[in-house]
Amino acid sequence: MTEDSKIGTYDFVAEPFHVDFTGKLTMGVLGNHLLNCAGFHASERGFGMATLNENHYTWVLSRLAIELDALPNQYEKFSIQTWVENVYRLFTDRNFALVNQEGKTIGYARSVWAMISMETRKPADLLTLHGGSIVDYVCDKPCPIEKPGRIKVTETNPIAEYQTKYSDIDVNGHVNSIKYIEHILDLFPLEQFKEKRVCRFEMAYVAESYYGDTLSFYQEKVGADEYHIEVKKNGTEVVVRSKVIFE
Amino acid sequence: MTEDSKIGTYDFVAEPFHVDFTGKLTMGVLGNHLLNCAGFHASERGFGMATLNENHYTWVLSRLAIELDALPNQYEKFSIQTWVENVYRLFTDRNFALVNQEGKTIGYARSVWAMISMETRKPADLLTLHGGSIVDYVCDKPCPIEKPGRIKVTETNPIAEYQTKYSDIDVNGHVNSIKYIEHILDLFPLEQFKEKRVCRFEMAYVAESYYGDTLSFYQEKVGADEYHIEVKKNGTEVVVRSKVIFE
Repeated sequence: MTEDSKIGTYDFVAEPFHVDFTGKLTMGVLGNHLLNCAGFHASERGFGMATLNENHYTWVLSRLAIELDALPNQYEKFSIQTWVENVYRLFTDRNFALVNQEGKTIGYARSVWAMISMETRKPADLLTLHGGSIVDYVCDKPCPIEKPGRIKVTETNPIAEYQTKYSDIDVNGHVNSIKYIEHILDLFPLEQFKEKRVCRFEMAYVAESYYGDTLSFYQEKVGADEYHIEVKKNGTEVVVRSKVIFE
Repeated sequence: MTEDSKIGTYDFVAEPFHVDFTGKLTMGVLGNHLLNCAGFHASERGFGMATLNENHYTWVLSRLAIELDALPNQYEKFSIQTWVENVYRLFTDRNFALVNQEGKTIGYARSVWAMISMETRKPADLLTLHGGSIVDYVCDKPCPIEKPGRIKVTETNPIAEYQTKYSDIDVNGHVNSIKYIEHILDLFPLEQFKEKRVCRFEMAYVAESYYGDTLSFYQEKVGADEYHIEVKKNGTEVVVRSKVIFE
């Protein structure tokens, strides 16, 4: 297999309701597209959700880090490339490149996934998945952004609380991964997005939250333009952590 | 021009983050697709947003009514057909059909649009738009659902309040049309969507709201499964009205 054939490329256009007030694609929509591309790429190679579900396994997103020079404008075409960087026994690293309509790479993303049994919720061995064939797709295309780092928040007073609603809940009964991104960016005033842009965004998915849970958002400013956020459900358990860097 | 050539058909698939906890496409995503199809169809015929914007005009959505027998499931392909039913001096009626992957029509929608000057915000004469050519696209395909009706809410105590945030705001600086749909459906408990499904949904867009506005939601139960909702901004001006019918 050539390195090129290991990369999946998918085309998109920035739809009017998918851009924010600055006319740029939102981080939530970009996240949605990235996760869809992961799904397309895996399905086409026989290790997608549908195949896994038949065997009572499912992919679980653990980490996501996005770093961008620019974002597509409303009505602009763009494409997302995705490939597998590493496969370990319990985790796999999947990377992404965001390519604008001129063919220039304007950003990268990294993600970390585990596979779990839908019955026991325990992690499964990726190296035996599909006869170990996922390893055949490991690709050496570079992804020149830092891996998702550790996020630590010591703040003990939440800056916002939110009770999860119907629209937050996905087909698994969990608050969906994209909604957390929206809720986290909604912590910032509009002014912040007028003066600056998000150049790096990280999510660490730690536990699931459910319908009716109260999410508390703890935010810590770390340096001039960097914010660390921890989301707890019902005042106790950490659900997600996030890092937002503006420039 | 044949009647068929007046109909635009656009293909979609129900993405994982676009379905609710029941695994069905959400009403918000469907609304987004309908409005995109309106845009595609109009652009392809020379009266889309881009062309209008050059001439300092823009389309404004006034009414939307959706009536459904079923909704696509996660990963299911579906298509949306759209056509112009009527053109009046100040309004045009655009209809939609939702077609499942077996080619069966599973729902219809009606929308009413005005065109306004971006400078004066005053309505423009549709019959003179593009030399009146929009009239050439009027199509007699039937749309067997009721037109959007009058919605009247007398309730004076809001059941929810919400301060608009970054994610609500579109490129025009307004709360986007789709976000109202999400916020309105979020008024209902999850149980409601377990036991029933939305068979008809109406939106009347009355005025714009902006970042930081407090939206108050007034809900009235009209019959066993019908709810009328009025949304006011900052305690006074009506922004949207909505009708939600379950079955």
